[in-house]
Amino acid sequence: MIELRPHVKDSKSSYIREILNVTQRDEVISLAGGLPCPSLFPMQIIEEVMPSLAVDRSLFQYSSTAGYQPLLNELRIREQIPNTHQMLVTSGAQQGIDLCVRAFIGRGDKVVTEQPSYLGALQIFSFAQADILTVKNEKDGPNLPQLEKHFLNNKVKLFYAVPDFHNPTGCCWSLHKRKEVARLCQRHNVLLLEDAPYRNLRFSGEALPTVSSQCPEISIMLRSFSKVVAPAMRVGTLTAPKYWMLAITKLKQAADLHTNSPMQKLCLEIIRHPEFDAHVEKLNREYKHRYLALADELSFLPKSEYSFQSVEGGMFIWLKIPPCNTLSLAKSALSNGVAIVPGCEFYANSQNAKSALRLNFSNNEPHKIKQALNRLRPVLELYRTAN
Amino acid sequence: MIELRPHVKDSKSSYIREILNVTQRDEVISLAGGLPCPSLFPMQIIEEVMPSLAVDRSLFQYSSTAGYQPLLNELRIREQIPNTHQMLVTSGAQQGIDLCVRAFIGRGDKVVTEQPSYLGALQIFSFAQADILTVKNEKDGPNLPQLEKHFLNNKVKLFYAVPDFHNPTGCCWSLHKRKEVARLCQRHNVLLLEDAPYRNLRFSGEALPTVSSQCPEISIMLRSFSKVVAPAMRVGTLTAPKYWMLAITKLKQAADLHTNSPMQKLCLEIIRHPEFDAHVEKLNREYKHRYLALADELSFLPKSEYSFQSVEGGMFIWLKIPPCNTLSLAKSALSNGVAIVPGCEFYANSQNAKSALRLNFSNNEPHKIKQALNRLRPVLELYRTAN
Repeated sequence: MIELRPHVKDSKSSYIREILNVTQRDEVISLAGGLPCPSLFPMQIIEEVMPSLAVDRSLFQYSSTAGYQPLLNELRIREQIPNTHQMLVTSGAQQGIDLCVRAFIGRGDKVVTEQPSYLGALQIFSFAQADILTVKNEKDGPNLPQLEKHFLNNKVKLFYAVPDFHNPTGCCWSLHKRKEVARLCQRHNVLLLEDAPYRNLRFSGEALPTVSSQCPEISIMLRSFSKVVAPAMRVGTLTAPKYWMLAITKLKQAADLHTNSPMQKLCLEIIRHPEFDAHVEKLNREYKHRYLALADELSFLPKSEYSFQSVEGGMFIWLKIPPCNTLSLAKSALSNGVAIVPGCEFYANSQNAKSALRLNFSNNEPHKIKQALNRLRPVLELYRTAN
Repeated sequence: MIELRPHVKDSKSSYIREILNVTQRDEVISLAGGLPCPSLFPMQIIEEVMPSLAVDRSLFQYSSTAGYQPLLNELRIREQIPNTHQMLVTSGAQQGIDLCVRAFIGRGDKVVTEQPSYLGALQIFSFAQADILTVKNEKDGPNLPQLEKHFLNNKVKLFYAVPDFHNPTGCCWSLHKRKEVARLCQRHNVLLLEDAPYRNLRFSGEALPTVSSQCPEISIMLRSFSKVVAPAMRVGTLTAPKYWMLAITKLKQAADLHTNSPMQKLCLEIIRHPEFDAHVEKLNREYKHRYLALADELSFLPKSEYSFQSVEGGMFIWLKIPPCNTLSLAKSALSNGVAIVPGCEFYANSQNAKSALRLNFSNNEPHKIKQALNRLRPVLELYRTAN
């Protein structure tokens, strides 16, 4: 028998993967996935633009690894990329994380993540056999003394962060913490990997500067069209200082030569369509309704035992609940027709897991969210009284 | 300064990348790339099918990592995949190589490749810090005693091979060598990674069984739509025994979640279109013309010093030339308006390189090929007499 590499063979299965088949059944309401709402995809624009892709042969030929040049040109202007930096089109922001880890992180290298954190990133760190250190996620961003202590006591190579509408907590870092984290990364020569797929899903408050913009010379920024356009096109971008881009581009070339071109062209035509801004506004207006519906339902729970932080965007509410086995709770909820993700899934070491649930509000209409909570509440009550 | 990993930083640049900007100029005729001909892309079918993608919202939502199920179902039947095996849609066959290497190969692990070999695979082995051993490419496939010696003397984990219309040599393995290689891999417990992007580009002779079909329990097969449909859709497949697929699927998930769905659907609609078989026949008829045009031009060279093996498909002729600095020759040829790839590019260790050139015949019409050779011949003559 030919053996897989041990750390690949033993990589843990994710709960979300395990329940995927079940959550797709009609009778289950899923608050589990990080799914945008398909009824809000810009299908009218897509329908209008799609035929134009079929008449351009050059879109179907092998293309530059960096990406479709007209899309790169447009994004450079929109995102005000400085001349010191370059942008690469990736197959979603997920690939951006993977490429950065392959460029910088070897076995045993130290990486800091927020705790809890995006499980797709944790999976990449685990495949890279990185040593994961964590900082506590507070209301306004990471715990700074803890972060500084990690940077002082360990040779940390990379800090992975989701400062805008964090997955799973929904937290948005304050301006103060953005500046302080940038300063700490600069002082301790730590690469900041900023993952910002939810940044444009803001329905309240004012946008704050990216953390990368406060320390551009040591940071890499990942953007995605998955949440404001559509995920299955698999188009994101990676922006980094020029001195790293040749190596990162070679890694991208080795990984898949280049991201598919027709979807890059489709992205470009969508974002410069006259109706695109209205589409994003509509999307955020609708997600706000859904968020308020979920928050309203949660307000029926006893406040002394259930709490969550309000969010200004993104897709998630992080509900803290009384101590219990959240994995077992999630399975009971599923039997009762509602899928949620137990908090332990978002911890590199599940023993550190706080008792919490991630609830998605983007993928269901308010009346469905209400129905989902009617199914979830008795399960919560059962687990509360059992402890 | 934050440092890239040393082997990533020091990875060598490819000649093809370096000259990409030059070869795209109108005044240069390029026989360098492994490019299918855009004027032969099935644009009529694409135009017919494309609008139907825009009306299916579900194509734009996050999807299963394994791939678009209707495409997988269709391919299982067409390729007669046994029940012991599973198929995964990859972002081109390139990603298939990368995923297999990530699943099986760690730093210092021994990998055997044909010599010369596909440089995109060599790049992946180099990023994985694998130890590359080589077997000589003969007229009918790899040198078997040399392969067996490697298997006997080293703990070889993987043999990477392109048995159908090899890149760069155009060689197609004999049935005898297919069976013998399968037997050797079985006996020595070596994973056979069979990369078959050119397999359907056959314009003469009869198709032979894949090597994987002779040793299915220890092999992984990579297929691609890049050559018979269009490369920029980035759709290929990986087929492996079930016992490896969970791990490989997790690696795929970490790499990019899933391959873009609209292009998978487009692929499906193209391959089951009533005109598809006629498209492939036309493609191979036209490539045969182009191959014969190139072979005809090469016949003007003195046979005692220039030789090549005739091919029955694929995209390349491997022209052996008198000893010289082929990189320097390629640069001279470029100054004279024709791009070719020097043989040394296809060697893990360029000191082993035989004096040869890879000439592509798929991307230019016969009159252009004739013109290209008119430009190349004086350069060949110059390098012949200089030695």
